[in-house]
Amino acid sequence: MKAYVKNPLYWLLLFVPLTLVAELLHVGEVVIFFFSVLGIVPLAKLIGDATEELALHVGPRLGGFLNATLGNAAELIITIVALRAGLIELVKASITGSIVGNLLLIMGLAILLGGLKHGTQKFDRVNAGLAATQMTLAIIALAIPTFFARAITANGGTHDTVEALSVGVAITMLVVYALSVLFTFRREAVEVPAIETPPVHHHEPTWSKRTALVVLGLSTVAIAWLSEVLVGAVEPAVAAMGLSEFFVGIIIIPIVGNAAEHLVAVTVARQNKMELSMSIALGSSMQIALLVAPLLVLLSLFIAPEPMDLVFNPFELEALGAATIIAAFVALDGESNWMEGIQLLAVFVILAIGFFFLPF
Amino acid sequence: MKAYVKNPLYWLLLFVPLTLVAELLHVGEVVIFFFSVLGIVPLAKLIGDATEELALHVGPRLGGFLNATLGNAAELIITIVALRAGLIELVKASITGSIVGNLLLIMGLAILLGGLKHGTQKFDRVNAGLAATQMTLAIIALAIPTFFARAITANGGTHDTVEALSVGVAITMLVVYALSVLFTFRREAVEVPAIETPPVHHHEPTWSKRTALVVLGLSTVAIAWLSEVLVGAVEPAVAAMGLSEFFVGIIIIPIVGNAAEHLVAVTVARQNKMELSMSIALGSSMQIALLVAPLLVLLSLFIAPEPMDLVFNPFELEALGAATIIAAFVALDGESNWMEGIQLLAVFVILAIGFFFLPF
Amino acid sequence: MKAYVKNPLYWLLLFVPLTLVAELLHVGEVVIFFFSVLGIVPLAKLIGDATEELALHVGPRLGGFLNATLGNAAELIITIVALRAGLIELVKASITGSIVGNLLLIMGLAILLGGLKHGTQKFDRVNAGLAATQMTLAIIALAIPTFFARAITANGGTHDTVEALSVGVAITMLVVYALSVLFTFRREAVEVPAIETPPVHHHEPTWSKRTALVVLGLSTVAIAWLSEVLVGAVEPAVAAMGLSEFFVGIIIIPIVGNAAEHLVAVTVARQNKMELSMSIALGSSMQIALLVAPLLVLLSLFIAPEPMDLVFNPFELEALGAATIIAAFVALDGESNWMEGIQLLAVFVILAIGFFFLPF
Repeated sequence: MKAYVKNPLYWLLLFVPLTLVAELLHVGEVVIFFFSVLGIVPLAKLIGDATEELALHVGPRLGGFLNATLGNAAELIITIVALRAGLIELVKASITGSIVGNLLLIMGLAILLGGLKHGTQKFDRVNAGLAATQMTLAIIALAIPTFFARAITANGGTHDTVEALSVGVAITMLVVYALSVLFTFRREAVEVPAIETPPVHHHEPTWSKRTALVVLGLSTVAIAWLSEVLVGAVEPAVAAMGLSEFFVGIIIIPIVGNAAEHLVAVTVARQNKMELSMSIALGSSMQIALLVAPLLVLLSLFIAPEPMDLVFNPFELEALGAATIIAAFVALDGESNWMEGIQLLAVFVILAIGFFFLPF
Repeated sequence: MKAYVKNPLYWLLLFVPLTLVAELLHVGEVVIFFFSVLGIVPLAKLIGDATEELALHVGPRLGGFLNATLGNAAELIITIVALRAGLIELVKASITGSIVGNLLLIMGLAILLGGLKHGTQKFDRVNAGLAATQMTLAIIALAIPTFFARAITANGGTHDTVEALSVGVAITMLVVYALSVLFTFRREAVEVPAIETPPVHHHEPTWSKRTALVVLGLSTVAIAWLSEVLVGAVEPAVAAMGLSEFFVGIIIIPIVGNAAEHLVAVTVARQNKMELSMSIALGSSMQIALLVAPLLVLLSLFIAPEPMDLVFNPFELEALGAATIIAAFVALDGESNWMEGIQLLAVFVILAIGFFFLPF
Repeated sequence: MKAYVKNPLYWLLLFVPLTLVAELLHVGEVVIFFFSVLGIVPLAKLIGDATEELALHVGPRLGGFLNATLGNAAELIITIVALRAGLIELVKASITGSIVGNLLLIMGLAILLGGLKHGTQKFDRVNAGLAATQMTLAIIALAIPTFFARAITANGGTHDTVEALSVGVAITMLVVYALSVLFTFRREAVEVPAIETPPVHHHEPTWSKRTALVVLGLSTVAIAWLSEVLVGAVEPAVAAMGLSEFFVGIIIIPIVGNAAEHLVAVTVARQNKMELSMSIALGSSMQIALLVAPLLVLLSLFIAPEPMDLVFNPFELEALGAATIIAAFVALDGESNWMEGIQLLAVFVILAIGFFFLPF
């Protein structure tokens, strides 16, 4: 367990009890909001570590599946809680934010910091190209309901068909996701390590299976509780800070839900493992697009006050398109350097300014 | 002639006389519609076979030209008949549908079925990349009048300039098409088999030149007659079935007009001839964009009740763009696997659901 | 100095005094407009030559920097004069026109004429891919304020935030540009000649440092004066010719400002130096996007009657997007042939027809 204890992120676990104290003392929504945000970060990492440990116990096949499906568990829990509270715009914004953040902020930081240390870094362009193609396909599928909604609005159609199409897209994408997990397993068995799976450090388990399960269970419960606190505090907190709910969804939630994973992507880039770094950034965004977003659409039919469709606002959609095109080009040319990192970050900064100014 | 007789598609020729009987008995528009649809399928294949036979008689140069220009003859005939009847939205929808169908449905099926049998399939990425680039250029040219129409609508321009621009685009594209046929011939002579030409099976002709010409003539006449029947039945039939004219244009006409060719693309992929398979799918869509669409614009000036412009509805255009980007990425990475096939088909399914729900 | 004197472009210097005479004689605005246009062409070349000579004197590092920043000096002067006169639409149109012209007209001509002489021409796809990626990133950054403006218009936002975002984008892009010049220098020092810098012919200087400085100073003064004349004549002249100010901005200004450079790009393609040719076309458009456009936005805050934002009309933006995608695909496939040149030119022709018809 030593390796885990050393991680400085775990100091943030202090914010879990601090949030409880803040709640009991009614210290103000802004403080409660930030305490819950900071508390979620290490819990998300705990879920990731526990999943990985568990994966080492159950063998590569089931383990790979666990890693592939629980990789965004923290974000899924937060968004489900937000969905139940009817914060549908925040949930959709967090989908956009996660994808854009992975493809621009994380890939950009990894390429910049890796490139500053190692100069031009090369990686397998076929593997990266494959991931980029799959990412492009996922984003296009995700964009179709918005295109459709715009087209019918101009022709006086009803919103019912948009919801029906969103559900159709969600089901199709879940089928694609399931097949893609199957594809990765079959491919791994015969060929090369696939780019789509989250990284599995092939070390011995340091936790017993029981410990891993207990940690997984406890972190999930704790994260669910903190998400309730966060979601409860978000509206008064953003009002007090002059931010929009949309901005919280698109910038803050994705950073909180993925902080630990992001740290890994940047760290391995510094170790000149560019292939692994790109696979984390691309794989995580693909999982959001193909698994988390469709699951939320289907769940919303049962748990949300109103169903969630897949219609994004134009600026969100253009941000998604821009991030995907850039990631695809960067991946397709098979090598990276710090200047490419700067450019990815520049687009992220410009988009973030835009999101900040968006009047909703 | 044995090879041809064996093809099960030819059993569908029974629907040619059946359509006549159905017409005489006034059995209802839905039945007549489907009978004419099913009758056109084998006739389209007959035109293809006769063209190929003729090509074998007249030598490679003129033969290649025949293959290149008559490759979409069936679809051209159907759309000309529809144009004369003033079904301009149906004609434009069938242009979109043919391109999207070739790039997503056919390429997707070919990659899926080929990949399931042969695992990862490789093909020359320079050739495929060249075709993808040309396809991208063609689609961008095709999209410009729509962009223009949107821009001027917002600024109070008149539709006359849209029509003028459409004609300008049509003439430019026909010049590009003519030069591209010339380019392919010169390139074939000195270099490698080009990716743009429809497949020529280099066997001995089994039909005499005279037979080929007679078959070509008869099928053309028959297909023209069946197209008249189809076009006459389409409006009452779609009303009876609850479909839209647009849906018939975008899904049914393209499948009918290209069924035989599609079968070939999938068959050769199963035989691990991925290069040929991609060349059929890419080549056929390029021919629609660069030859069929411009010809229809120019012909509409003389035969249609009102001229046809190149303004597509937003969802059509986005479908075209999506299909082209995806096909380009799949082609540029130089190899394919069944998962890529699944993803192309997934986007096709999602688009088809959207087309189904579009309220026109 | 012989090499320079031979260049037929220099005969156009006659139009500098002719413009003065025309002004004194009040010969009519259309004549004055064309005389000033023709006079600017050789002066733009003189600035380029003087910069290059100066670069040879000051050593590779500072010289490279001079070439990189003064490469579009002529266009910058014209647009600054136009900005001061409040012709903001003309200035923005000339940004679009320069980028589209470089990527479609110049790259198209170079590929066509090079390909007709040499058949398939190859170039390093990694270098070209890098430049294409950077170009794509620059265009996406440039497009974000327009996306933002559209999104907020639909939600009742104010234009203040658009201006703020434009300034934010401008500052970000200047930082990226500065870092990219730094990157190129560091890369040149250790690796390969970069694709982004304008071509440096490694010959001995033929002018003394003093001559170069005098020529640079005189041409700058002369071009500034001619720009005043041109800008003063543009409104009556376009009215008299039935053109729009927008058309002058998008087609005429870019050709005038870049004619000399364009000639070089085509000439080296004929000499089978495709890599250099592509680097000029890609490098010049990148300089417009990352240096000229942001500088104009910031300068407009001080010298223009009203600040210039980075919101382009939809057709401009789509032209920029189309040109970038095409250039990227052409660059990424690592080789070119005359047919690709034809297709780039075809898209340019279609866009030019569209620009001609645009009602503003």
